[in-house]
Amino acid sequence: MARVPARGLADVVAASTALSDIDGQAGRLSYRGYDIHELAGVASFEEIAFLLQRGVPPAAAELASFRAELAAGRRIGALAAATVEGIARHQRPMEALRSLVSLGSADDADAGSNEPAANLRKAARLTAQQPVLIAAYHAAREGRTLPDADPGLGIAANFLLQLSGKPASARAAEILDICLVLHADHTMNASTFAARVCAATLADMHSAVVAALGTLSGPLHGGANEQVMLGLQAIRQDGGDPRDAVTRWVTERLAQGEKIMGFGHRVYKTEDPRASHLRRMSGELASASGDDTYYQMSRRMEEVVMAEKGLFPNVDFFAATVYHYLGIPTDLFTPVFSASRMAGWTAHVIEQHADNRLIRPDSEYIGERGLRWVPLGAR
Amino acid sequence: MARVPARGLADVVAASTALSDIDGQAGRLSYRGYDIHELAGVASFEEIAFLLQRGVPPAAAELASFRAELAAGRRIGALAAATVEGIARHQRPMEALRSLVSLGSADDADAGSNEPAANLRKAARLTAQQPVLIAAYHAAREGRTLPDADPGLGIAANFLLQLSGKPASARAAEILDICLVLHADHTMNASTFAARVCAATLADMHSAVVAALGTLSGPLHGGANEQVMLGLQAIRQDGGDPRDAVTRWVTERLAQGEKIMGFGHRVYKTEDPRASHLRRMSGELASASGDDTYYQMSRRMEEVVMAEKGLFPNVDFFAATVYHYLGIPTDLFTPVFSASRMAGWTAHVIEQHADNRLIRPDSEYIGERGLRWVPLGAR
Repeated sequence: MARVPARGLADVVAASTALSDIDGQAGRLSYRGYDIHELAGVASFEEIAFLLQRGVPPAAAELASFRAELAAGRRIGALAAATVEGIARHQRPMEALRSLVSLGSADDADAGSNEPAANLRKAARLTAQQPVLIAAYHAAREGRTLPDADPGLGIAANFLLQLSGKPASARAAEILDICLVLHADHTMNASTFAARVCAATLADMHSAVVAALGTLSGPLHGGANEQVMLGLQAIRQDGGDPRDAVTRWVTERLAQGEKIMGFGHRVYKTEDPRASHLRRMSGELASASGDDTYYQMSRRMEEVVMAEKGLFPNVDFFAATVYHYLGIPTDLFTPVFSASRMAGWTAHVIEQHADNRLIRPDSEYIGERGLRWVPLGAR
Repeated sequence: MARVPARGLADVVAASTALSDIDGQAGRLSYRGYDIHELAGVASFEEIAFLLQRGVPPAAAELASFRAELAAGRRIGALAAATVEGIARHQRPMEALRSLVSLGSADDADAGSNEPAANLRKAARLTAQQPVLIAAYHAAREGRTLPDADPGLGIAANFLLQLSGKPASARAAEILDICLVLHADHTMNASTFAARVCAATLADMHSAVVAALGTLSGPLHGGANEQVMLGLQAIRQDGGDPRDAVTRWVTERLAQGEKIMGFGHRVYKTEDPRASHLRRMSGELASASGDDTYYQMSRRMEEVVMAEKGLFPNVDFFAATVYHYLGIPTDLFTPVFSASRMAGWTAHVIEQHADNRLIRPDSEYIGERGLRWVPLGAR
């Protein structure tokens, strides 16, 4: 094959996948052939994790057994548990999760094995543990004990319980569950690609998802949801009518050539299909909270950015206020995203291991040539 | 640009680099324009780390200052130090290093910053700490205290001291130093590429090298040096004349269509230029040890594989016996390789951050389409 320079690998097909598909022109996203609009509000995150990791929707008995496997796999390992306090004192959330998941392989009986059955078990455990690691980190940094898990609860409801110590309302748990469904997979984004590059050396699943977590920590990938919320809070603190303040803030930013976080997407040329669900849930939670200021500010921001730049909000924009109204601390927004994407990352590792080829691109050499090394004494 | 399917990204140029260049036809490798044959045995690993990370060979005063920076940066962080015993009890060497480096960001004042000066400082510290982490892990699993570092020693000599507790001979340290020079960088191999994919989201250096460590842990990338040694030991244990045993073993393997570890390379079509240095050093150490059996076995294996398959030994083949004669435990061969490659990984992160673009390839969707989701109750 000819050497194709492709900076950023834009439009280069790096892998085949049956996990998710995007039609950027039509604004469609599907998981294993099911349109995201068929799934959101209908399928639970547990069903989606099963679908992605195991290939087909679970029958009722399979789902019950998978839920039991997830609840049993939820307990974090002894080494991670023993280290979480030190980590919480000294590492930021995404660094902490990178460390905690890396330590987690110490207590995983299947660590190091890429056998299909081992990979399925690890995928379930990693998916079950990720929200617990977030809650454990948060409890540790607040000097609290991690609240006990409730084995009767699904991942979303149990996360809200362990994060805050109080049971969440059924509707709050349902809304977080929908968020987890919406974020579970998204083709060859940078963190998923990093996981596949890693897994393609036949490195094991823990190594691959640790690579993905580190990759997601970069502000060009994760972090936009957090930045959206910090922006809204800063604008609101400026005082005056919050909607007018949004208009001024966006106009000034755009005049200075700055980007507005939460808008535009490299793939979608129309509205991100996930954004419409998140907008609706943000509005619902805002009304229920009795203070819909952030929601109203978000709507205004959407209008101004559309009028000025023709850009649609992306998945991060309304996720910010949804997470905020759910009581999730702002610096845990990207970690919560990772708790969803863990289902997709692990499914990609399973897929990569099942039909593997080393991913080793070429590089173009742009440096000097033929230099003579002058030994130190003569330099 | 047209969509180019490129499984494994073979022959796709994913990034530009001025760090290293390979001419696979001619069997040439250069770092920043200096042929590896100009460097091996002449330049120290510290000079090569400086060259890769900072762009030019150090002047004498710069090298002295860089050596002092490396010696000062050698001390591992408090969180990693507090956790190494638990890690040594429960994680294999490459898992352990993934965890220890991830924990290391907790004690790095520049963690999270991608500023050029911060990146240079972190590159020096990560390069200085990697061999110490290996020695600390090894001491912990043997229930020993990590021997004190000697600030007067360079990286290679200090590593052998801290690994064994005894000062190494000057020649042993020199030979390990040459190994570190030979392994420091090698264009867009899988672990380096993983580091760049991670760094391209503007994730920080610790995240990128943690991704690289996980990627190197895969047997299709790291691990061949260890497998070579385990193979030689297994053959020798079978008894009889060791060279004849090699001939039988290789012939049987090849007849069964199996690969022989340590031979052939995706890029080099002739002898890997690093292999000639390693062969010579293996022979020298073998003679000095008084028992050159493994070296003689290796030479025989080389002859048989060349005669039968026309394949050259790669960098891992003679590295195995060199490390063995240096007294390095076999399961630490890949970790020692990582101590060298850390210089290259960190240099690639610096280069990626200096002229960044997100690395986000496409994927080809090969799954089903247009399925209708049947809700659980109706399934």
